[in-house]
Amino acid sequence: MAKNYHSYFENAVARVRDEGRYRIFRDIRRSKGNFPKATWFRDGLDEKEITVWCSNDYLGMGQMECIVEAVKSAVDRAGTGSGGTRNISGTTRYHVQLEKELATLHKKDAALVLTSGYVANEATLGVMSKIMPGLVIFSDEKNHASMISGIQRARCEKKIFAHNDLADLEAKLKSVPLEQPKLIAFESVYSMDADIAPIEEICDLADKYNALTYIDEVHAVGMYGKQGGGVTEERGLTDRIDIIQGTLAKAYGMIGGYVAADSVIIDAIRSMASGFIFTTSIPPSTAAGALRSVKVLKMTPEKRTQLHERADSLKARLREAGYPFVDGPTHIVPLMVGDPVKCQAISDRLIEDFGIYAQPINYPTVPRGEERLRFTPGPLHTDAMMDELMVALEIVWEEFGLTTSKVAQAL
Amino acid sequence: MAKNYHSYFENAVARVRDEGRYRIFRDIRRSKGNFPKATWFRDGLDEKEITVWCSNDYLGMGQMECIVEAVKSAVDRAGTGSGGTRNISGTTRYHVQLEKELATLHKKDAALVLTSGYVANEATLGVMSKIMPGLVIFSDEKNHASMISGIQRARCEKKIFAHNDLADLEAKLKSVPLEQPKLIAFESVYSMDADIAPIEEICDLADKYNALTYIDEVHAVGMYGKQGGGVTEERGLTDRIDIIQGTLAKAYGMIGGYVAADSVIIDAIRSMASGFIFTTSIPPSTAAGALRSVKVLKMTPEKRTQLHERADSLKARLREAGYPFVDGPTHIVPLMVGDPVKCQAISDRLIEDFGIYAQPINYPTVPRGEERLRFTPGPLHTDAMMDELMVALEIVWEEFGLTTSKVAQAL
Ligand SMILES: Cc1ncc(COP(=O)(O)O)c(C=O)c1O
Ligand SMILES: Cc1ncc(COP(=O)(O)O)c(C=O)c1O
Repeated sequence: MAKNYHSYFENAVARVRDEGRYRIFRDIRRSKGNFPKATWFRDGLDEKEITVWCSNDYLGMGQMECIVEAVKSAVDRAGTGSGGTRNISGTTRYHVQLEKELATLHKKDAALVLTSGYVANEATLGVMSKIMPGLVIFSDEKNHASMISGIQRARCEKKIFAHNDLADLEAKLKSVPLEQPKLIAFESVYSMDADIAPIEEICDLADKYNALTYIDEVHAVGMYGKQGGGVTEERGLTDRIDIIQGTLAKAYGMIGGYVAADSVIIDAIRSMASGFIFTTSIPPSTAAGALRSVKVLKMTPEKRTQLHERADSLKARLREAGYPFVDGPTHIVPLMVGDPVKCQAISDRLIEDFGIYAQPINYPTVPRGEERLRFTPGPLHTDAMMDELMVALEIVWEEFGLTTSKVAQAL
Repeated sequence: MAKNYHSYFENAVARVRDEGRYRIFRDIRRSKGNFPKATWFRDGLDEKEITVWCSNDYLGMGQMECIVEAVKSAVDRAGTGSGGTRNISGTTRYHVQLEKELATLHKKDAALVLTSGYVANEATLGVMSKIMPGLVIFSDEKNHASMISGIQRARCEKKIFAHNDLADLEAKLKSVPLEQPKLIAFESVYSMDADIAPIEEICDLADKYNALTYIDEVHAVGMYGKQGGGVTEERGLTDRIDIIQGTLAKAYGMIGGYVAADSVIIDAIRSMASGFIFTTSIPPSTAAGALRSVKVLKMTPEKRTQLHERADSLKARLREAGYPFVDGPTHIVPLMVGDPVKCQAISDRLIEDFGIYAQPINYPTVPRGEERLRFTPGPLHTDAMMDELMVALEIVWEEFGLTTSKVAQAL
């Protein structure tokens, strides 16, 4: 590399460091059967047993025996990789069955599996303007990076509306002629803020102003709705959303993403989206594991009940102790710190001394000043683990000079 | 969906149909141990045994027992999905070890694993202009869709040079001031044309005009070079390329992609590329299978010898019979048809009546008028399979009124 280039990369990394967002990935290994326990590997130090409090394998499906068996038996039957793009020998029985199952789950004609939830958003939103010339995309300001990337890729007019703000959305919809094609892109559960979009009201606005609706249910599928069909299922709104997007990598415990919609919509995406066409399809065994996981979660509402009970239980403890957490309607529990350095230091102290793993969430994942620890309790987090967490938090919170509302009142 | 939207999607699909590029995916299932044999599932018809001639599992690693075992034992040990992005509980022992191994393979400081080869290209190229303001990217006109997508995403100045054309590349490099940052993006093996870039000469130009070099070795890793490090290894050019990109989904028989480079380059990509940061990492078992596959292919040059012998053998037969195939230096064998409808019809006839599966490659994967069947013979394609293929081709070729050079000479 010519000498002058080195400094470009060094400066880029230095900027990241200066902004306090240089990340050191924690090297862990989960151990099937023991999740949320895992082993943490540290350079030059002993391995350490930890409790993972920040996984998005929200329900622990990644260690469920029947899912593991589905993966293993598909590998035994069909081998490891698919060996091709979907069009060139990479479409298998497993893919076809999984897509049927996902379509059924969301009460849509068809579904399309892509390599990740990220790619599902990027490839789908990215191709919409080719399908609908003149399209305007209305995007919630808190939409995930993958949606933002897809919208950039679409290179059409976009209007960003204030988070979950119906009045702002309406004002922006109104500013575009009724006949011009429009698409409203938003999420159901916002995973960093732990709130839920006013889906029905957004659909009402879509009807009124003639817009398509696109929802990201990545943090809801498997966990909300009678069969795990997400918040749209829970609220009976499936048929009011044109495109439902989801992931197989969080509640379903695998990897991969998808969209579900009318056949003609899926057919257009399938035929035109670069990020779908020009890449190797997910392995047959991944599709097999995901298929099993979707089926299991359809039939086990008790897992959803447990998830929400555990989240409520943690929230009750935090509320009781007066911590500044986001007391929202979801299973996600963000604890606000509001300082990137403290947030990182608290996280370090928690894992090093108490074996409690909660990753700091700093900019650019959340705005500056809103740094937080994000807890994702699930059915496998016991009361004893919660007790441990509360004790550790109390020690660390005081140490870092942070206050709880109890303390604040007492002062 | 409001009525008017339906027609947008219908029209989009109709345009694809009109251009003769509407695709019907063939639903197959490979059977471990029998590859390249597989089962083809047809709506309303019997299952049919076929021989796959178009897989990119070039070496059959996807069914190798030790790879299958590596995957299964990692699933048994660590469960199915990783449960998080790399920064939020999704970095595991398996990822760390795989990245070390890939760095060693390419004689680089470091490597970074992304969810696919597509994402590796898109995310990496897409972030380069943020790292190097004022960057100009020089891109071979035949570069893969994923590189094109990354370059679009970079939204910087780009200059497209004629395929493998050093004079054109030089003219374009010369037109930009020496100090301005430049990156030349190209592939080693072009998989649709079966040719190889003049890598050394491109590096010479990069030196002369002060440019970084980025090479896509997706169709070469595992198959070229003493240890499978690609054409750059084979030609002793590893240290002249700044960023080497590859996939785990083709010769290595798994899924996932990567880049290998100096630590500081990898650190910048790791810290800044949206497509790397905001997505669930590949499953531990995928990393474990890929690690095993890379290690095995380092130590089994005979697999590479067999691959090239099989490709040479098929090419010799086609040459002998006078078929219009691309007689290039790679393991890929494109047979030119030059008409999208015939190309599809020949492919249909081959699979339906002879159980020979070679997918037609039509626009947009190749330019119009250059439609072809693309054969990928590998170590597991026997002489008997080749004999069958030659007989079938002879019948079909005549039937469709196509000529071989033998016939052409006789006429
Ligand atoms: C809202 C949202 N959408 C999409 C994604 C991407 O999904 P995946 O991890 O399957 O790529 C994520 C997180 O990773 C997310 O939080
Ligand atoms: C040249 C080239 N680069 C990148 C890719 C993408 O790799 P992957 O299939 O791992 O996404 C492909 C094919 O799929 C390719 O042919």
